[in-house]
Amino acid sequence: MATHSENPLIDTARLEAVLTEFARARDWDSFHNPRNLLLALTGEVGELAEIFQWKTDAEAEAIMATPEAEHVRQEVADVFLYLMRIAMVLGIDLDAAVRNKIEMNARKYPPKQRD
Amino acid sequence: MATHSENPLIDTARLEAVLTEFARARDWDSFHNPRNLLLALTGEVGELAEIFQWKTDAEAEAIMATPEAEHVRQEVADVFLYLMRIAMVLGIDLDAAVRNKIEMNARKYPPKQRD
Amino acid sequence: MATHSENPLIDTARLEAVLTEFARARDWDSFHNPRNLLLALTGEVGELAEIFQWKTDAEAEAIMATPEAEHVRQEVADVFLYLMRIAMVLGIDLDAAVRNKIEMNARKYPPKQRD
Amino acid sequence: MATHSENPLIDTARLEAVLTEFARARDWDSFHNPRNLLLALTGEVGELAEIFQWKTDAEAEAIMATPEAEHVRQEVADVFLYLMRIAMVLGIDLDAAVRNKIEMNARKYPPKQRD
Repeated sequence: MATHSENPLIDTARLEAVLTEFARARDWDSFHNPRNLLLALTGEVGELAEIFQWKTDAEAEAIMATPEAEHVRQEVADVFLYLMRIAMVLGIDLDAAVRNKIEMNARKYPPKQRD
Repeated sequence: MATHSENPLIDTARLEAVLTEFARARDWDSFHNPRNLLLALTGEVGELAEIFQWKTDAEAEAIMATPEAEHVRQEVADVFLYLMRIAMVLGIDLDAAVRNKIEMNARKYPPKQRD
Repeated sequence: MATHSENPLIDTARLEAVLTEFARARDWDSFHNPRNLLLALTGEVGELAEIFQWKTDAEAEAIMATPEAEHVRQEVADVFLYLMRIAMVLGIDLDAAVRNKIEMNARKYPPKQRD
Repeated sequence: MATHSENPLIDTARLEAVLTEFARARDWDSFHNPRNLLLALTGEVGELAEIFQWKTDAEAEAIMATPEAEHVRQEVADVFLYLMRIAMVLGIDLDAAVRNKIEMNARKYPPKQRD
């Protein structure tokens, strides 16, 4: 799909192979077009938001010490899996995109000067 | 943060180190609490959705051959960066969470039988 | 809350009275702050998106003739109810905000000229 | 579109007439299908979320006394306008849907007993 960097920040090659086979074995490829996956991503972000909607910031920060921790982990994974599929069906090298965006952010938001 | 698997599907260790330093150098840690990051994630998903909102499915599938490709890559990266930060501040091992969710999905949606 | 227009486009006064009493009777006011309600709104938009995520445009347009129609109606109502609550807790006159935005849109997007 | 109630909680008839004419005059009807409007709604919710993403709950509650108030009003209006369009293109009577959902919520969450 893309020439991978010598110095990647993330390596998603094995995950992409697993997800490609997972979709193929279930005949899901025809459903996994960009707009469908975007609506699915919106749905999963909504499920993650619902876990936190009535919590204070303090409760949110302590959530992984509660029985809701597993639910949080699953929804974070779901958001990531649909985002990965969006990158895959669009042919986006996620590592390259992330490295480029971090460089852009570094120029836009220079580090604080310290004495 | 977590014991990493012998057989990870994704490796985010270098990205996490970069993002930790990036936030530290800009005094952003106090802003990066779970609910703030969730609203930021919602914002970035919204920006990604806006690129596709008036496109047909065919136009969406062909978008990476258009001048909008770079914008798409940047928004996909932004969504991922905030999701990674959510995982980091909550102490979630993204690789373990993803592997667990794929196993759950494999049980929930068995592959199609083929003759 | 606000001086209502002589020519409103929407009238939400009765709904606002009902929702005020509904929240009061359940001691929900302390939970209904702007950021909580925004996360709740995100959750409901996600639930609406999930109904449509694997549908074609043609299936989506025909959905109200299917057994999913009632589910769609409920999720549209849920999105609206949280948006109304956001307007209420922020003291926003929704009718005035809507009329102002339509005027802005009319200037930004002039009607097509026709012969 | 629908038989309106004798006791509506909201009245959107004039808004619907204005939006119908607004879309017609700009040839927007072909773009305003359910999935497009859902992605547009997601985009506007994202813009609203971005206003609040780095604010504390206290700052969020005081936002309408700041110069950001007008921006908040515009984004709340944008979210509502796309939701109204979704209801319109699907033929949903928003008032009926809202009244039904409030009745469902009243049964699901009975008021607190008081002595």
